[in-house]
Amino acid sequence: MLTDSGLQIAMSCSGTNAYRYGTMRAWVLSLTVVLADGTVVKTGGRPRKAVAGYDLKSLVIGSEGTLGLVTEAVLKLAKVPENVHVAIAVFENIGDAVKAALGVVHEGIGEAVEFVDANGLKATNRAMPGVVWEEKPTLFLKFAGKGDVPMQEAEIARQYCYQNGCKEFRVSGDVEEVEALWAARKALGRSLLSMKNDPTDLFLSADAAVPVSKFAQFIEETETEMRGAGFFCGQMGHIGDGNVHTAVVCAEKERDEAEILLNKVRRRALRLEGTITGEHGVGLELRDLLVEEVGESGIHVMRTIKKALDPKGLLNVNKVISWDC
Amino acid sequence: MLTDSGLQIAMSCSGTNAYRYGTMRAWVLSLTVVLADGTVVKTGGRPRKAVAGYDLKSLVIGSEGTLGLVTEAVLKLAKVPENVHVAIAVFENIGDAVKAALGVVHEGIGEAVEFVDANGLKATNRAMPGVVWEEKPTLFLKFAGKGDVPMQEAEIARQYCYQNGCKEFRVSGDVEEVEALWAARKALGRSLLSMKNDPTDLFLSADAAVPVSKFAQFIEETETEMRGAGFFCGQMGHIGDGNVHTAVVCAEKERDEAEILLNKVRRRALRLEGTITGEHGVGLELRDLLVEEVGESGIHVMRTIKKALDPKGLLNVNKVISWDC
Repeated sequence: MLTDSGLQIAMSCSGTNAYRYGTMRAWVLSLTVVLADGTVVKTGGRPRKAVAGYDLKSLVIGSEGTLGLVTEAVLKLAKVPENVHVAIAVFENIGDAVKAALGVVHEGIGEAVEFVDANGLKATNRAMPGVVWEEKPTLFLKFAGKGDVPMQEAEIARQYCYQNGCKEFRVSGDVEEVEALWAARKALGRSLLSMKNDPTDLFLSADAAVPVSKFAQFIEETETEMRGAGFFCGQMGHIGDGNVHTAVVCAEKERDEAEILLNKVRRRALRLEGTITGEHGVGLELRDLLVEEVGESGIHVMRTIKKALDPKGLLNVNKVISWDC
Repeated sequence: MLTDSGLQIAMSCSGTNAYRYGTMRAWVLSLTVVLADGTVVKTGGRPRKAVAGYDLKSLVIGSEGTLGLVTEAVLKLAKVPENVHVAIAVFENIGDAVKAALGVVHEGIGEAVEFVDANGLKATNRAMPGVVWEEKPTLFLKFAGKGDVPMQEAEIARQYCYQNGCKEFRVSGDVEEVEALWAARKALGRSLLSMKNDPTDLFLSADAAVPVSKFAQFIEETETEMRGAGFFCGQMGHIGDGNVHTAVVCAEKERDEAEILLNKVRRRALRLEGTITGEHGVGLELRDLLVEEVGESGIHVMRTIKKALDPKGLLNVNKVISWDC
């Protein structure tokens, strides 16, 4: 029986490496799933590819526990890269950082292309004293591969960064330094929590994603809106996938104002042909907004599938889509 | 309205480059689909990743026209590689060729890792006179990337080939030669047709796939069975994905015998935790065998989805799964 992994499959998790490797869907070869009526389905063997009937595994991955319980999974493996380099590029403004990142994305290089804004680094400095980060828009880039490849790719990235106003570009292939530099990015979620001034303060976030070509407009417009907010907010995330986490730390009494800001972000993503959620899922919170993304017809199809596979409404009912129209 | 592309999506097509890039499912960002009741569903925008509700696009991709008609598709693009090298490696026996290929796969290198057996090259020699191929088990390898990367990868592959009894390893990065060498692999389907001695002769094939680790056993056992056959047969295909095309050219009166041989191949794939079809799909022909792959419970779930989305049975009914139990 899977526990954490089952959850990760149910949510179709992904993270910084999805830029290079894709999300959970790309790595699951087959699943064993228990359906609402007790039927146990094994979706196939473990070949690297198959077109044998409907793609039941992809239907279950990301269905947030509403269609079945995952009890077994066969995963594809990738070779651990021989060498890894990490580069940190500091910019004066967000627009320049995005332009440099787009250059890297268009070259098709890198294993992770991450962005952290000034406030994100302010949180890092507060939570992880020792290394002092410049509180400016920053790219965290990872390059992985055989022999010289990571270094060569880092050199290409350096050029894109300097062409776009980068003042400081640091690159390292030293194992310990790579770990230390990337640790700041890795711990960002926890670092943001350190911005709470009071234990009752709220941490709220949006997780929208847009086509990479719309990323600049997306985060610049959010940036402008954030300037007017009376609480802490920042943007960070998987710029290589066009997926940004908009984070807010605020007092309970500011919740409504924060939610309005985050919903503006999600709706902006939809206007820019994106999604309200790149990796965190729908649950209850985004259920009503999902209609705006896939339309009434999309919800109708999802509800039809849900009711066909779980006619009694036993599995996590009313999550993702409401049971009744 | 999509025509060819719509078909390729409905069949979840893939080919030699799936080894590096994945199949159709990895490259479709969203679909517009017309369902049986006329509902038009757009499955999302065009972000590189999304977890907004059920993965309707993956359900439709590969559903062989039984769930809906694809009228629009948004595809992800990849950068065309800067440099491409092709290598041809000739072996004395199939087992050695497979071992060398596995080395390449485990290194995680290459864009395509293809295999053609002696009979496949006999067909090539007959259909494409000019270049004479040695009629021995042969790997066709493609390496792609920036700068020196393809050459470096080809060098690693050369070592695996020589360690496994390869007598001749030819590599080229010259654009015209690369095209000429790869053309033999590309034209293989047509070349096999040249083995017909009479226009009424049949071309039949299986398209099974197994985990890469089982590939040696899989094709060696098929090889042994083929030796006893009274008609032309060969094995070739996407060894990097564990997906092999077992091809037969025979007279109409030999059809039953050929079908028995091909079904043995497909059932062997299942015993080795593989699939009856890696990329060609189920249709009518493999419908009954599909039960052996996904079980009665898998068929039950597929039929439930089919009947929920197409209750009147309007769309390509009885393909993939039978309408009635």
